[in-house]
Amino acid sequence: MSYYTPAQIGQPLADVDTPALILDLDAFERNMRLLNESLAGRNVKLRPHAKSHKCPEIGKRQMALGAVGVCCQKVSEAEAMVDGGVGDVLIANEVVGAAKLKRLTALAKRANIAVCADNSENVTALGAAAQAAGVTLNVLVEVNVGANRCGVEPGEPAFRLAKQIHESKHLRFAGLQAYQGGAQHLRKTEERRAAIKAACSMVKRTTALLAQAGSPCERVTGAGTGSYMFEAASTIYHELQAGSYIFMDADYAKNDWTESGIPRFEHSLFVWTSVMSCPAADRAIVDAGLKASSVDSGMPRVFDTPGVEYIKASDEHGVLKLASGIALPLGHKLKLVPGHCDPTVNLYDHYVCVRKGVVEALWPIAARGALL
Amino acid sequence: MSYYTPAQIGQPLADVDTPALILDLDAFERNMRLLNESLAGRNVKLRPHAKSHKCPEIGKRQMALGAVGVCCQKVSEAEAMVDGGVGDVLIANEVVGAAKLKRLTALAKRANIAVCADNSENVTALGAAAQAAGVTLNVLVEVNVGANRCGVEPGEPAFRLAKQIHESKHLRFAGLQAYQGGAQHLRKTEERRAAIKAACSMVKRTTALLAQAGSPCERVTGAGTGSYMFEAASTIYHELQAGSYIFMDADYAKNDWTESGIPRFEHSLFVWTSVMSCPAADRAIVDAGLKASSVDSGMPRVFDTPGVEYIKASDEHGVLKLASGIALPLGHKLKLVPGHCDPTVNLYDHYVCVRKGVVEALWPIAARGALL
Repeated sequence: MSYYTPAQIGQPLADVDTPALILDLDAFERNMRLLNESLAGRNVKLRPHAKSHKCPEIGKRQMALGAVGVCCQKVSEAEAMVDGGVGDVLIANEVVGAAKLKRLTALAKRANIAVCADNSENVTALGAAAQAAGVTLNVLVEVNVGANRCGVEPGEPAFRLAKQIHESKHLRFAGLQAYQGGAQHLRKTEERRAAIKAACSMVKRTTALLAQAGSPCERVTGAGTGSYMFEAASTIYHELQAGSYIFMDADYAKNDWTESGIPRFEHSLFVWTSVMSCPAADRAIVDAGLKASSVDSGMPRVFDTPGVEYIKASDEHGVLKLASGIALPLGHKLKLVPGHCDPTVNLYDHYVCVRKGVVEALWPIAARGALL
Repeated sequence: MSYYTPAQIGQPLADVDTPALILDLDAFERNMRLLNESLAGRNVKLRPHAKSHKCPEIGKRQMALGAVGVCCQKVSEAEAMVDGGVGDVLIANEVVGAAKLKRLTALAKRANIAVCADNSENVTALGAAAQAAGVTLNVLVEVNVGANRCGVEPGEPAFRLAKQIHESKHLRFAGLQAYQGGAQHLRKTEERRAAIKAACSMVKRTTALLAQAGSPCERVTGAGTGSYMFEAASTIYHELQAGSYIFMDADYAKNDWTESGIPRFEHSLFVWTSVMSCPAADRAIVDAGLKASSVDSGMPRVFDTPGVEYIKASDEHGVLKLASGIALPLGHKLKLVPGHCDPTVNLYDHYVCVRKGVVEALWPIAARGALL
């Protein structure tokens, strides 16, 4: 509807109304190149996670720069990606329930799709759904490599599930999903390195069993922005699933990157906001609250404005604390760096893509709200 | 798009795919009646806050039961309400910037609109926009009654701003906005009562100055679900802006309600979720994470399922801790009570309205994402 169009192409950023989700195209493109350069000479493929951006325009740009496909978390997210022209999607997650399996197998008819499993009953259901749809479905075993979320335990339990997939007529065993989500925001480089080292030994225990049984593992996939260089250097991982590197949110920016081999990505994603109230000398209120910038991983950071701190969010208001001598006039616009990019993107219908201060494009966030 | 349709009318709830936002119509209707009954005999009007529901279908039902209109926080939210048939909207917030003022004054031509102000410069801009549009705009002075967010200070500063509005040819002084947001989640009844007592004395200081000057204040508006009975009993407030009472989220449910006169509203809003992984005896993973239930005010609560606690949310996963002896089978569906209803509603495009276990309607959340 018209009241949701956030900007006009060609409009100066200064005139874009607030709040809006701004993507700085130069910084975004530099981040994509930086990641590629950091992996030069490594025998590893990139499959960025699209749950961060939910946008086929971005997925296609990642693939144009060499990514082999994208990851999604939900069938509906994958549908949006395929509809938008992304032809290779790994659902890096379990898919449960007849309704979703039907959609999953339908999608596998029109794109290169793989899915994860961590449960024998679910593998049986995946096989039945694939048979009903007349497809052969690629299924990876998700292994718990330390995040203690989903995933079977490494070694024998993972091997047994892989065997079940292998023996299912309508499924194809397509490797191991081994994402150490708990490692990504460990602040110290050494902590992250150690967590991935531990994950690698769990993967190795599993791949050794597979090799012994004569069904070698063709793909180990995992990694995130916080750790991907450790997986890349391991020679155990074949695919990297980093997602946030294109945006670089405030939470990731708190990580220590020294001696990680991971470049310092720039902030490219911003919430554009206006000062809507100047009620006291030490306080200004902006029009972006927790419906404009997700606070699950902390408050947004005010970009490039010394002496101004975003200290509190309510639904539609943000409270800025002003250092002594700092004043922001009513209507003043500024950029916030979201605490956590993924759920912030999920609040908007479009990226307002800006280059050198001018709106160059509006990219629909096609998979916004894609929960099913 | 088709992949976002969350349910079919007539479908049993058990068959509705997950995650989905469920509205239990019986509980919702009881909550609306309970609030009305609690105000019987009080000389006070109800103007529920639509930022909680963002849904004209709900706004119209509230008005059918006697509400004089709704509140919104954003012009775009108000546009969605007016487009959906709600004819009376107070924007209980400041509106700043030429683009928004133009839309605000256009909206004032087709519905009964009022807006708040807390700044002299903004009042001047409101007057100019009203003149340009050829409308007379209703403007309330927002007074800081203790929340320390927006609002001028009570007494002289509020009086001076009211005078400026009064003297502006194209504006009509329409009362005081006096919402004590900071009081709503104070856990103890007595703390909330004391905060509203303090707010009332700040309002009185201001209305006395207005009466002295011969321009009595026609409307004092404010209150939320946590405190509304204190404002109702004050005889100072004319309008109550409670919003969450229709849903009753997990955060509000932690308030002590004894001797408040506020009824115990029922949970009517739920996130419907499935167990998607059973990786350990003490842990189950559900498919609703922080993109399905906002965690800004704490984790969702598992409804009606003793021994099961939602302890951690990531983007698309929720970790349930299972007490000893409790097991949830793969695919098992359960209801979560969101921590905070407003930002949770803002994640979905529809309410799946259920009565006695059957889907009765899908109500579009027309103002989802309405930030401008």
